Amino acid sequence: MTASEGLVVALSGGVGGAKLALGLSRTLPPEDLLIVANTGDDFEHLDLSISPDIDTLMYTLSGLANQELGWGRADETWSFMETVDALGGESWFRLGDRDLAVHVERTRRLRAGDTLSAVTADFCRRLGVAARVLPMTDDRVRTRVLAEDGWIEFQEYFVHRQCRPVVRDLAFDGVEAARTHPDFLAALAEPNLRAVIVCPSNPFISVEPILALPGVRAALAACAAPIIAVSPIIGGRAVKGPTAKMMTELGLDPSAAGVAARYGDLLDGYVLDEIDAGSVAGLPVFVTHTLMKTLADRENLARIVLNAADKVGCKRP
Amino acid sequence: MTASEGLVVALSGGVGGAKLALGLSRTLPPEDLLIVANTGDDFEHLDLSISPDIDTLMYTLSGLANQELGWGRADETWSFMETVDALGGESWFRLGDRDLAVHVERTRRLRAGDTLSAVTADFCRRLGVAARVLPMTDDRVRTRVLAEDGWIEFQEYFVHRQCRPVVRDLAFDGVEAARTHPDFLAALAEPNLRAVIVCPSNPFISVEPILALPGVRAALAACAAPIIAVSPIIGGRAVKGPTAKMMTELGLDPSAAGVAARYGDLLDGYVLDEIDAGSVAGLPVFVTHTLMKTLADRENLARIVLNAADKVGCKRP
Repeated sequence: MTASEGLVVALSGGVGGAKLALGLSRTLPPEDLLIVANTGDDFEHLDLSISPDIDTLMYTLSGLANQELGWGRADETWSFMETVDALGGESWFRLGDRDLAVHVERTRRLRAGDTLSAVTADFCRRLGVAARVLPMTDDRVRTRVLAEDGWIEFQEYFVHRQCRPVVRDLAFDGVEAARTHPDFLAALAEPNLRAVIVCPSNPFISVEPILALPGVRAALAACAAPIIAVSPIIGGRAVKGPTAKMMTELGLDPSAAGVAARYGDLLDGYVLDEIDAGSVAGLPVFVTHTLMKTLADRENLARIVLNAADKVGCKRP
Repeated sequence: MTASEGLVVALSGGVGGAKLALGLSRTLPPEDLLIVANTGDDFEHLDLSISPDIDTLMYTLSGLANQELGWGRADETWSFMETVDALGGESWFRLGDRDLAVHVERTRRLRAGDTLSAVTADFCRRLGVAARVLPMTDDRVRTRVLAEDGWIEFQEYFVHRQCRPVVRDLAFDGVEAARTHPDFLAALAEPNLRAVIVCPSNPFISVEPILALPGVRAALAACAAPIIAVSPIIGGRAVKGPTAKMMTELGLDPSAAGVAARYGDLLDGYVLDEIDAGSVAGLPVFVTHTLMKTLADRENLARIVLNAADKVGCKRP
């Protein structure tokens, strides 16, 4: 860990973002990292409140993540789901026995009146996560996808239909009325803010719900620290998930440059893979190995992103 | 199995009752057995609707019961509860991963508007239970216990405090307003009713909630078939659970005779253990080996109880 050089805010979705968040958490003192999690993927299933991106972050940061599956926990058993199957319940969303405990206990606490952020903070503490994971809002935002046969809920698209439908449009239900978490806005206004990192998550479904919250784009535009994104696309392909497919369907160029163009003026710097070197112009670009296979890869990318931010430096005199 | 000789209605709580119910289910054709389950022990925990007696019946009748523990399933894993513990949730009520699936799926269906009896029938079908298990009511009845420090919920007494509090009184909240399941009342009015069996369950907490439902005592008094109880007390001790302790605390004789006295006029015959032979007078008594350790014991006791009923015969000309 380096000595404190200011606060870093990381905007993150699930898997890819969580990998960089882990790298950052191993590079920065806990008090210098705020990970803002997308909650647009949250949903209710079997009457449980499920927050996939928060959980992926929690499991990744605590070392519990199942790196083979890319979701859920490594030390998982599946008795619950086998029995739900046997009883004729809905079993398309695979819930491990340990993962389920998180959803059940979260659901119980939310119903008892706790906020999602309070529950998340307590779970992180109990699972040994030092860095702070903050839901983007404690209010309900739900991503929906316009497929060819109409609007469907995000998890219906993502898990049940395995991203097969062609995406015509996206909507974040409730986002205008949601209150951006005040700690997130406060962090963006911190005088000692060092950087805002847009993690290599899907821009449309992981990052844009965060950007669509009231006041976020204005706070980002006003903040003195540099905003650096890491491309989730490497050589025209997403490391995981439907990002490239979705970009093509939305009429965008499925490339590192396409992602940079989508973020537009928001960014002060961009980190992309060696394979995409030279493909992006118009802002400071940092080329490196961005595929995070090992823990060393995660830490290395974290350092490069922080260095990039420090190099771009303060946006205003 | 014998050829159909009429309908048998068995009133049952958990473990002891379920053992005899299993014996009956292996002795009678499925259409000749209706097992009416106590739901006074039902409760809400971790926001789940839990029906302990129904589940014990379901697991026992399907061969899934954990005979060592005396509750839950034999093929169980415990990852969920371990994780709830780690998250600081309530873990005093031990929920196995497979057992939990039953509660989650039941809760989901109840919230979707299904009745407890419909859910139970479907679960039984899916778990391969041929006999019909019917909740005594689809409405909410909740047994409470008056301990020295006031009224407490039944599972608080039974599981959390492990039956340690001294019982001063019992109440069945909601029982006056509950609608006795119509199929139960209809069965008692059936012209081909062969017998009503009061299983060797705790009279106070397993059988009396059933008897307290609107119309049940009247229907039992009016029904033509004999009502036969099996003593849950053998030699002054309950096979399992707090029956004897509770009787003493309520000022009753903790014996087979005490149970018979408690049921009073309700009964037309009584089956008790050899060890208690000669202790009960005033009604036809059938003495046998009533401790059910093996499957053969269960089947044997079932046959003896049915023979006793047939011997007592029709109550009215």
